[in-house]
Amino acid sequence: MTVPSGKVYLIGAGPGAADLITVRGARALAQADVVLYDALITPEMLELCPQAVLISVGKRSGKRSAAQEHINQILVESAAQYSTVVRLKGGDPMLFGRADEELNALESAGIEYEIIPGITTALAAAASIRQPLTKRGVARSVALFTSSTAPGESTDTRIPNCDTLVQYMGGKEAMLTAQRLLDVGHPPTLPIFVIENCSRHDERSQSLTLAELANGLPASDGPVLVMMGESMRPRKHTVR
Amino acid sequence: MTVPSGKVYLIGAGPGAADLITVRGARALAQADVVLYDALITPEMLELCPQAVLISVGKRSGKRSAAQEHINQILVESAAQYSTVVRLKGGDPMLFGRADEELNALESAGIEYEIIPGITTALAAAASIRQPLTKRGVARSVALFTSSTAPGESTDTRIPNCDTLVQYMGGKEAMLTAQRLLDVGHPPTLPIFVIENCSRHDERSQSLTLAELANGLPASDGPVLVMMGESMRPRKHTVR
Repeated sequence: MTVPSGKVYLIGAGPGAADLITVRGARALAQADVVLYDALITPEMLELCPQAVLISVGKRSGKRSAAQEHINQILVESAAQYSTVVRLKGGDPMLFGRADEELNALESAGIEYEIIPGITTALAAAASIRQPLTKRGVARSVALFTSSTAPGESTDTRIPNCDTLVQYMGGKEAMLTAQRLLDVGHPPTLPIFVIENCSRHDERSQSLTLAELANGLPASDGPVLVMMGESMRPRKHTVR
Repeated sequence: MTVPSGKVYLIGAGPGAADLITVRGARALAQADVVLYDALITPEMLELCPQAVLISVGKRSGKRSAAQEHINQILVESAAQYSTVVRLKGGDPMLFGRADEELNALESAGIEYEIIPGITTALAAAASIRQPLTKRGVARSVALFTSSTAPGESTDTRIPNCDTLVQYMGGKEAMLTAQRLLDVGHPPTLPIFVIENCSRHDERSQSLTLAELANGLPASDGPVLVMMGESMRPRKHTVR
């Protein structure tokens, strides 16, 4: 049996642009012996750790649980082999990042670790489209949610009752959210922003209404974030 | 009349530790001619811009609207005087940051600007206490909210219906939230984490129950974040 000796850094890479990682995260990456990275990590981010062994542990939908156990195993094995191990995740590791399972695996194996937060896509998107998520007299609560149909999770049909709603991995499921919001009386003109590939060279954003969202979303290949609420109404002077 | 020529960077400093700002934010700070900073910005963060003129625009509760108009004015005047102006805000500027008012002022004056996101305290706190905000089968939605009694805002008594609730500036108002959660049937044993001065040298965190929170909070001097929900239940193996 190997004796674990390495330390694991669970790092949030942020939305994609290499300079939207934190200074602390960039420094840990530059010290890494090995980096386990997700499918959403951009090539430019990996240029921050040219010295490291790179292991892609990208998950694809459909076989997520099996993939997660495999990632846990690679993490624990890496800590036995290397002194500085980085687990690099898109966005922030503690929000929709399946961190719990990896932390359990590390703790069960008695491995030392540290978590370095990352910019979650909702905040990078708000900056990019210049629409604050909260606004005095208009919006002062924000819900961050996703509709997962992963094994072991039931479909949750509650609509968050916050002023601004941000649906991660929002694609087709955001259309269902829009229909539910219409059903409970939200106005068809409620403003929406859809952002794809936030902070990347091919970022695209689109302003639309709740009624339009319920009817369909433009085709997309990258991760999509859907932001809904009065806070998304463009300002009079907004210059893009 | 002066002709505005400078560019304004609205930057999220993150929770306080100087290395939890983004790489992009740190670079912009290092180029700044003038930095307008909030009361929550730490001295170590200001060491990132030794070349800049520093202007404290810290707001104190009670006179927030007047202070905001004054800040807007300083911002616009600074852009006429300097080529690189930084407006540095604690956390993220687009979440509970009153960005809307500053963006309106900049746009009305025709001043170019860019927004650089920051780590919001909820994510830094989750990393620090090692409790993910979402957890498979337990929590997959997060509400970020505050109870403001600033002029022009009514008291909102809705309880967000998300799995994990994060109340910013949570002090005494989190006690009211806890009482409301009890009133609508949440269990008295619901786990809570309270974090003060997140990421700073004097960070303190405390694990308690919903019933305990309803009865009182320990005295605090710094910004307090209160996190509530099953996701806050300590793991079997957690080693702090």
